[in-house]
Amino acid sequence: MTINGHSLIAGETAAGTGGTTYGFNPATNEQLDPAYTLITEAQLTTATSDAADAYASFSTLDPETHAAFLEAIADNIEAIGDELIVRAGLETGLPAARLQGERARTTGQLRLFATVVRQGDFRGVRIDPALPDRTPLPRADIRQRQIPLGPVAVFGASNFPLAFSTAGGDTASALAAGCPVVFKAHNAHPGTGELVGQAVVKAVKDFGLHPGVFSLIYGPGASIGQALVADPAIKAVGFTGSQAAGIALMRTAAARPEPIPVYAEMSSLNPVFVFEGALKGDVDALAQQYVTAVTGSSGQLCTSPGLLFAPEGELGDKLAAAVGRAISACAGQTMLTEGIAGSWHAGAEALGAAAGVDIVGQGTAGPTENAPAPTIFGTQVRDFVKNHVLHEEIFGAASLVIRYSSVEELIEATNRLEGQLTGTLQLTAEDYPSAAPLVPALEQKVGRIIVNGWPTGVEVGHAMVHGGPFPATSDTRTTSVGTLAINRFLRPVAYQNLPQELLPTSLQDENPWKVNRLVDGKPELNQF
Amino acid sequence: MTINGHSLIAGETAAGTGGTTYGFNPATNEQLDPAYTLITEAQLTTATSDAADAYASFSTLDPETHAAFLEAIADNIEAIGDELIVRAGLETGLPAARLQGERARTTGQLRLFATVVRQGDFRGVRIDPALPDRTPLPRADIRQRQIPLGPVAVFGASNFPLAFSTAGGDTASALAAGCPVVFKAHNAHPGTGELVGQAVVKAVKDFGLHPGVFSLIYGPGASIGQALVADPAIKAVGFTGSQAAGIALMRTAAARPEPIPVYAEMSSLNPVFVFEGALKGDVDALAQQYVTAVTGSSGQLCTSPGLLFAPEGELGDKLAAAVGRAISACAGQTMLTEGIAGSWHAGAEALGAAAGVDIVGQGTAGPTENAPAPTIFGTQVRDFVKNHVLHEEIFGAASLVIRYSSVEELIEATNRLEGQLTGTLQLTAEDYPSAAPLVPALEQKVGRIIVNGWPTGVEVGHAMVHGGPFPATSDTRTTSVGTLAINRFLRPVAYQNLPQELLPTSLQDENPWKVNRLVDGKPELNQF
Repeated sequence: MTINGHSLIAGETAAGTGGTTYGFNPATNEQLDPAYTLITEAQLTTATSDAADAYASFSTLDPETHAAFLEAIADNIEAIGDELIVRAGLETGLPAARLQGERARTTGQLRLFATVVRQGDFRGVRIDPALPDRTPLPRADIRQRQIPLGPVAVFGASNFPLAFSTAGGDTASALAAGCPVVFKAHNAHPGTGELVGQAVVKAVKDFGLHPGVFSLIYGPGASIGQALVADPAIKAVGFTGSQAAGIALMRTAAARPEPIPVYAEMSSLNPVFVFEGALKGDVDALAQQYVTAVTGSSGQLCTSPGLLFAPEGELGDKLAAAVGRAISACAGQTMLTEGIAGSWHAGAEALGAAAGVDIVGQGTAGPTENAPAPTIFGTQVRDFVKNHVLHEEIFGAASLVIRYSSVEELIEATNRLEGQLTGTLQLTAEDYPSAAPLVPALEQKVGRIIVNGWPTGVEVGHAMVHGGPFPATSDTRTTSVGTLAINRFLRPVAYQNLPQELLPTSLQDENPWKVNRLVDGKPELNQF
Repeated sequence: MTINGHSLIAGETAAGTGGTTYGFNPATNEQLDPAYTLITEAQLTTATSDAADAYASFSTLDPETHAAFLEAIADNIEAIGDELIVRAGLETGLPAARLQGERARTTGQLRLFATVVRQGDFRGVRIDPALPDRTPLPRADIRQRQIPLGPVAVFGASNFPLAFSTAGGDTASALAAGCPVVFKAHNAHPGTGELVGQAVVKAVKDFGLHPGVFSLIYGPGASIGQALVADPAIKAVGFTGSQAAGIALMRTAAARPEPIPVYAEMSSLNPVFVFEGALKGDVDALAQQYVTAVTGSSGQLCTSPGLLFAPEGELGDKLAAAVGRAISACAGQTMLTEGIAGSWHAGAEALGAAAGVDIVGQGTAGPTENAPAPTIFGTQVRDFVKNHVLHEEIFGAASLVIRYSSVEELIEATNRLEGQLTGTLQLTAEDYPSAAPLVPALEQKVGRIIVNGWPTGVEVGHAMVHGGPFPATSDTRTTSVGTLAINRFLRPVAYQNLPQELLPTSLQDENPWKVNRLVDGKPELNQF
């Protein structure tokens, strides 16, 4: 496929008149062709007004066409072939195997949402039949369904150029809900974004959908993003990125004449709690798993473990020593951008300079540009709870081992944490009584609790929660991964006493889409 | 029962040290005893910290105890007897029959939520079983449930001293979710609030629950309310009241170090669209129904119809004349407070003075204080769409008849509306083709669409939506009435690979609470 260096607005290539930008190869710091033109705010309104125009037809699509459209996007992404992996590798420094896995996750996610669309539970159909003879007052026939919120602005993440970007989880769940999407491309992987954008646009065309269903825009990062969120046609926002950028979008959305929901996934330390029982087994293996979780993808994962609590005493010493050995064998991998590598250095320097912090172990810098030496720091709970610097996320291959002397200390440290995406327990059956009181404390701080695994590797399923209390996300009531993510883009509407002729299809008596329904408060299953 | 004039903080009578206030009889403008002491911000933190302490035990209550507790509140409210109706009548001017109906609604609501708690679908249990043999990677066992957000601040409405107040819909749904409640009493019906508060406190005691599960506080309106929403122990807000107050709470909640959701139900014009077919029947009956909906409870209902669109020409003239006759037979009823009556006068004066607005008909002022003459104004769509004054809610017995010449004009007027709670169509089968394009336009503006009924009388059921786009509410994704309201106070948490011993009860394999579950994406019904 040809990449053109322009936005794709409602199916058309649109050259921006607001300057240009380039992708960069972070392994060499070299500029990548072509130049990408940036749109102006005036050009932006074409995309948003076309998205608004697309709502009426797209939001009422029949389930089979709707699902097949999502599958076609997946097919089209696969059809790009190696070109996509090569370009994404050049723009991000991520290895091909990782990108191939991420592509499979992206297409799998689209196909999972196709099953959600066919199955129809997200429509939330509830029917309270009329009770004409009820006293003292009769009851009218009342029906409820969930309708799509409207056009959604999606901002991709730098660290998942496929799975959390152009056709990633936010786009897939918004399109599955029936919301048109205006996607703000990440300027760190513009070519990858355009290739995937073309795959989406082709599916829109092939299915004869309104072209406003999807637009991909390149613009000056912060300003065009703010303008997009402020645009009255936009009704919700999906974002994955930094806390500063996410909070700025939350503020803009809250200050609109009509405030809208922002679903921002922002930052997380992902604490791991190691209990003594877990250290009576293969400590080297445990240490290696931890170091792999810290250094994989150069540590640039939302769920990379930034904190590991280990007991004081001999067993904890053994773990710390094993971690030190494991990390010293690691070479740095290219980070996503020069800026991100710079932030990593600044964060690691600040943490290393904090009172009570030492170095448990360190790897070596990689042979490319922007590939700093992975580093594990060490401290004690008493220092951790009193210094906010030790609570700041370092995006990249760094982590902090915190030694604790009692479960009470663990609970105190947990209570002092800000909101996180995950919390992990490493334990054996002998530790259950100690761990039991930590579980409810963790529930108040995280969206997902893991036992004897690692938080990296976020399964895309029905039960996944990739979310958590602020500031891990902007809205703790949701998840950005898994099928529950579709609920973010829906709202309920009730229909009282409507004749069949005026009822939406999903609410009609004959139930043409065979959706499951809640009838008078009781589940009625109509499929399987 | 004795009313003491003090807050009820965590089960104890707490005299406020921040001054006093009184209820007033709006029919006479006379002060009602006793004086109510107002708490200070220092006293407030006792209530909020007790609520935080109560979370651990209350959020994990077994369903049967939890449901029986809600039913006990209902029983205790009924046990107050006529004293409650008398006091509420004195404080609000509302007639006894209306208050008896409202009491039945309040206790029915609590009992409905008891069934929701026993049934358990609100726990949102999802299980994706482990797939150890999956390639390329095995899948861990992942389970999801919804947990209560934490302590909830609830603000009661002036116009429903029982059903949207102390133990009203917000309190009932928050308690059902497992959230402790700190209720800010409405200073316009302090005695009613205390009587119901004592009923709740008695249930908390009788069930041996942590006393922090419920507190009722009296304080200086705006300042204590802002302090309550800003309190770090509070995790969500339920509010029914004015747009200005609701927006002020939204701003405070968004500006917290940890922003929290605010569910504010604020204002609505509740447009009614009359099609020609509906005017070929009994026009006098239709006019009478409209006037009854406008004037019932002195027009002080969230869903009172503030706009009625009628066709131009002979049929519409006939309706306008019938409306004029019906309203002229109406006498004013006492409004809730002197302040509300004053606002009604100011709003009616502004509307009457607007260009292109005349008077369709007017009743007579009532014999009591604060009982203004119900008034129906008239105008044309062309004036309505260009003057924002005609879009402002007049809380009380006033409404505006708007004459239209085509369905296109109706759709244009609908597109110009702000968010509303409801939209109503009056029509017959011959009007279906004309009405069909209005339905999707209305969906974008309202939470509930009604055909051939009236928006007043909000059924408390499973399918009800009492919500709508901003500024009707602060959060269009929810409803404040009906069983779906419980979802406002929950958030999802995932549990990956937890042993049975550490899993919450609702997620355990043996399913002790017999909840319905989504297993691998398929509904598994375990009760009926």
